[in-house]
Amino acid sequence: MALLWHSGDDDRDEWEPVLRRLIPGLDLRAAPDLGDAREIDAALVWKPPQGLLASLPNLKAVFSIAAGIDALLRDPTLPDVPLCRMVDATLTAGMAEFVLLQVLKYHRGLDVFAAEQRERVWHWRRNRRPDERTVGVMGLGEIGAACARTLKRHGFTVRGWSRSEKALEGVETYAGQGGMARFLAGLDVLVCLLPLTPETEGVLDARLFAALPEGARLVHVGRGRHLVVADLLAALESGRLAHASLDVFPEEPLPEKSPLWGHPEVDVTPHIASTTDPESAGRFVAENYRRLGAGEPLLGVVDKGRGY
Amino acid sequence: MALLWHSGDDDRDEWEPVLRRLIPGLDLRAAPDLGDAREIDAALVWKPPQGLLASLPNLKAVFSIAAGIDALLRDPTLPDVPLCRMVDATLTAGMAEFVLLQVLKYHRGLDVFAAEQRERVWHWRRNRRPDERTVGVMGLGEIGAACARTLKRHGFTVRGWSRSEKALEGVETYAGQGGMARFLAGLDVLVCLLPLTPETEGVLDARLFAALPEGARLVHVGRGRHLVVADLLAALESGRLAHASLDVFPEEPLPEKSPLWGHPEVDVTPHIASTTDPESAGRFVAENYRRLGAGEPLLGVVDKGRGY
Repeated sequence: MALLWHSGDDDRDEWEPVLRRLIPGLDLRAAPDLGDAREIDAALVWKPPQGLLASLPNLKAVFSIAAGIDALLRDPTLPDVPLCRMVDATLTAGMAEFVLLQVLKYHRGLDVFAAEQRERVWHWRRNRRPDERTVGVMGLGEIGAACARTLKRHGFTVRGWSRSEKALEGVETYAGQGGMARFLAGLDVLVCLLPLTPETEGVLDARLFAALPEGARLVHVGRGRHLVVADLLAALESGRLAHASLDVFPEEPLPEKSPLWGHPEVDVTPHIASTTDPESAGRFVAENYRRLGAGEPLLGVVDKGRGY
Repeated sequence: MALLWHSGDDDRDEWEPVLRRLIPGLDLRAAPDLGDAREIDAALVWKPPQGLLASLPNLKAVFSIAAGIDALLRDPTLPDVPLCRMVDATLTAGMAEFVLLQVLKYHRGLDVFAAEQRERVWHWRRNRRPDERTVGVMGLGEIGAACARTLKRHGFTVRGWSRSEKALEGVETYAGQGGMARFLAGLDVLVCLLPLTPETEGVLDARLFAALPEGARLVHVGRGRHLVVADLLAALESGRLAHASLDVFPEEPLPEKSPLWGHPEVDVTPHIASTTDPESAGRFVAENYRRLGAGEPLLGVVDKGRGY
């Protein structure tokens, strides 16, 4: 019984001691030195090279280091074993914190003041109360619902949208294609936290932007392929969108030639809205790995048909 | 019995209907049309022209529209009547919101990511938890204490400094000149919310910056004359300070030629960290005006000897 660890982003030196402490007697393997691949029964991965998982003949489960698992699902060589997303309180808290920060940034006009600073313009304005701002959260899974609650707790007027009906205290919820236009109308800030599925790919397009009020702001912390970059640029050009904060991109790292880097109305962050804390996430992995060994039901199993 | 209203920033059209509704039968006066100045017994002001208050022979109280009253105290023609600062829950909440936003901005590295965006650099990093950041609040009056509590509630490690000893739950407090160096050592972010007095003028100087750790951040939302701009620029140049967010300046509006406008490690906002909400603040003014008429003790009276 051995666990393979591989990440395209995370630091093995941070993860290894934590996993060894949390899983006594752990046989941890990492590429390129896999040892006898037949002994590996589980893999904890983020952005594994295509084919790595398929090379493990006795793999029984794949644990994702992050919440987003669409890239794994797109790997045609992904073995037909249970795939578990990361479910971790610090991952959720980190996203809620980042979304609160971005919404506060727009609420307090830091994007406008930054533009005025570039022009050396001093323009005092009276502030608005948070309840005078309507913020819409698209996607009401574990993380989206936590973000909506955090925004509500701060005092914002919050709406939520999801594919199927959901109820969330103090949040006006909308569902399905039929509810989309009413959800978008009147939003000051739109936050995208949808999972990536064939249905949601390219959802942030010209049609959606046209349903927002003039001068709306976008916080995109979902998945890169939700976004149609050309439509975003056109919406910023026309003034339909006043500003966008993008943490995820159709191609990552964002190519150096992308016009998003130099756009005065776009803030780029390198997919850091929420990152997995080895200590906290390690406990989730240790529990799932224990369950795997004991033949108990795994936590966070992805519905591959639905895509999340 | 008449009330003079004058502000160098706020909008009379927003204030007048609120005051008329909250104070039935109000005789409201505004420059230049004061009418019979002898009838004016109170003045609600922000940045009044020097001498305006002295021209009111029967003035019994001055109400400040804002919390900062140092400019009024510096007016040598200020009549010798009680001066009341604004005490208003929305004013306090607005400041706590702005301070939380600025501290979150640094906690989540938005200043670093903005610099990397300018260079088209994609550099992923794992996030830290808020308790891994130590934030120091200088000034623990009504507003400073509220900011410290808000930061603590979010999870930051919070320290407080004040002239005289104060206790604040969950906050490590320091006092006086003797406690300053220990307060500053180890801060990731310093928030200045002191009142402006002869003692605190120029407090944000080379000596204070030298006591901060290398790479600290400054959020200055106190009063403009706390800051020695040349020392700030030197501290940014040397790397002692990594970034500063300045909302107040020794000279306001900030002169167009100021090097702060174009500095890549300085965010300038035009004294908007907290602004007075006419509806909420109007209730405080109405109560004080009623007390004045009834001969009852006024609220928020400034100790002119102490300067706050």
